[in-house]
Amino acid sequence: MRTIEWISEDNGARLIDQRLLPNRLEFVHIHSADEMILAIKTMAIRGAPAIGVAGVFALAIHALQISQSHTSQMKAILKAKAQEIVDARPTAVNLRWGIDRMLATVERSELSGSDLAERLKAEALAIAEEDVATNLRMAKFGASLINDGDTILHHCNTGSLAAVDWGTALGAIRLAHEQGKKIHLLVDETRPRMQGARLTAWECQQYGIPYEVITDGAAGYFLHKGLVKKVLFGSDRVTANGDVVNKIGSYMLSLAAFANHVPVYPVFPLTTYDANTASGADVEIEERPADEITAIQFEGEEVFPKGARVRNPAFDVTPAELISAWVTDVGIIYPPFAQNFAQSIYNIKSNR
Amino acid sequence: MRTIEWISEDNGARLIDQRLLPNRLEFVHIHSADEMILAIKTMAIRGAPAIGVAGVFALAIHALQISQSHTSQMKAILKAKAQEIVDARPTAVNLRWGIDRMLATVERSELSGSDLAERLKAEALAIAEEDVATNLRMAKFGASLINDGDTILHHCNTGSLAAVDWGTALGAIRLAHEQGKKIHLLVDETRPRMQGARLTAWECQQYGIPYEVITDGAAGYFLHKGLVKKVLFGSDRVTANGDVVNKIGSYMLSLAAFANHVPVYPVFPLTTYDANTASGADVEIEERPADEITAIQFEGEEVFPKGARVRNPAFDVTPAELISAWVTDVGIIYPPFAQNFAQSIYNIKSNR
Repeated sequence: MRTIEWISEDNGARLIDQRLLPNRLEFVHIHSADEMILAIKTMAIRGAPAIGVAGVFALAIHALQISQSHTSQMKAILKAKAQEIVDARPTAVNLRWGIDRMLATVERSELSGSDLAERLKAEALAIAEEDVATNLRMAKFGASLINDGDTILHHCNTGSLAAVDWGTALGAIRLAHEQGKKIHLLVDETRPRMQGARLTAWECQQYGIPYEVITDGAAGYFLHKGLVKKVLFGSDRVTANGDVVNKIGSYMLSLAAFANHVPVYPVFPLTTYDANTASGADVEIEERPADEITAIQFEGEEVFPKGARVRNPAFDVTPAELISAWVTDVGIIYPPFAQNFAQSIYNIKSNR
Repeated sequence: MRTIEWISEDNGARLIDQRLLPNRLEFVHIHSADEMILAIKTMAIRGAPAIGVAGVFALAIHALQISQSHTSQMKAILKAKAQEIVDARPTAVNLRWGIDRMLATVERSELSGSDLAERLKAEALAIAEEDVATNLRMAKFGASLINDGDTILHHCNTGSLAAVDWGTALGAIRLAHEQGKKIHLLVDETRPRMQGARLTAWECQQYGIPYEVITDGAAGYFLHKGLVKKVLFGSDRVTANGDVVNKIGSYMLSLAAFANHVPVYPVFPLTTYDANTASGADVEIEERPADEITAIQFEGEEVFPKGARVRNPAFDVTPAELISAWVTDVGIIYPPFAQNFAQSIYNIKSNR
């Protein structure tokens, strides 16, 4: 089962509705780009690789629906819709990467009407397939860092649910588990939306990976006790200097790991790399609605006082200095990031 | 209104039921030591100074109820009950301090029966009154560190609700606010029991202190942005070397403050100081029930998968190296803690 799938019969898509997990496994059926934008904004689908694919599916669906338009008009409409899609989650760079690839296809193509729409659909499906292959490559590199007997601390959800399949950090952990390595996972719950408790714990149960959920603030306790061998998480954007923009809480977790000499490994595909942004300080951090924080109850009772004011930044920046190695689909990059990453890319291109 | 009060009419006590805040302000009426032990264990009352007073009230109530016993039997019963009370929350040292003071009164006293019981009641009431005076002294020292215009990040609840009145860190903040200093408070919610969101936000609303609640994992974001001038919290135990045992999450918060050159000030009364424990590594950290973590809902739905396994350590240790100054009722202690603290105590004794 995939987190997001193209449905050929009605030229639409089907997503696992991640807001309903772990209570119910239900699907959202998407019939238009605007429905997909809403699904991204409301986080029915989340996870950097998954929303990258959601975005390109949205643009392909839109192309099929407007394929009667005059070519120049069609291209203009697609460009405008592309911007709306990118704006649905401004911090995640995979979304922009996928949309840019689709727009480049539009620009380069001499096709028009339904031929152009079919070309975009094929491109979107290719991106989804490449995502699975990319994730599996990352998982292999990541799994090579994991030893038999390791206790790993993991932030947010980076599993199948965050991608089309496999995922990033949790994909590596799952592969290590499937390779027969005995692993114990500490899953931090990841407030406010609790993707760790909701999604990562649920995925661990599916795969049979032994785990325990902890609160985000308890990570330091376990790190200081020497009970954790590695910290793994995904990334929403990696800037040119190796700073990692990821789910809020990653920075404090990385500080606590660093202070206790526990390696920190972000796992992400090349599409998460943002060469155009020098460092994390240059990244606009999305602040999400207050009710993501306040809409929780404890034993059926409201937790926040009426009228409570909140701040809800969705991401933070982990400086490159706190990171032990960056795990990508082209290999494991050790510090210094910029230099070794450039070398990796060069080697790959030379070998092609 | 006090968090905990002695009720003379029925030789019992009345507590604000902190589990019901901020939704309802209701009281628990305590008629026996065992009821008080349950109230402490279930956190109807919490906060190191408050449970210290709850403990001594419990022992006084018990003494009044067994005052018909033979003196030696009465003393033995009180000693056994004292142990049960201390075991209700093993990490907080104020509880042990208060109970030890009551037991010393028992040992020293030549009274018996109801005279001894009345003596213990008087001692318990004196401890409660001293707590208010102590907290106000701490508040004055703490407030002197707070500047007009400061944004302060605060962990857990350390206000009136954590003590008989005033509290520790929040008492200092409240006093600075009453002194006319313009303060903005970032209140971290403090999972799992959400004392920040539930209690500190509620207290801020009562006092008119401007605040915003953030998730625990977001503290690093605001610290790194340079938006925070000070970090304040209370303590459940301070060991001989100045390590601070406090609500889970304090350690990661302190690491993030330290990394961003923001001073960290724990605020606590002398009764929190534990000369008999060399360092935080020697402190037994209480693990609390799993359902404190799992019994939350989001928009009415369960968050954790059925059968989710969790770990729930209630406290962590902030090493003395991360602390800028220790704010106590005998003054502000700057590093090195052990030496300067001893000097402070010496000065006070010399001046008496």
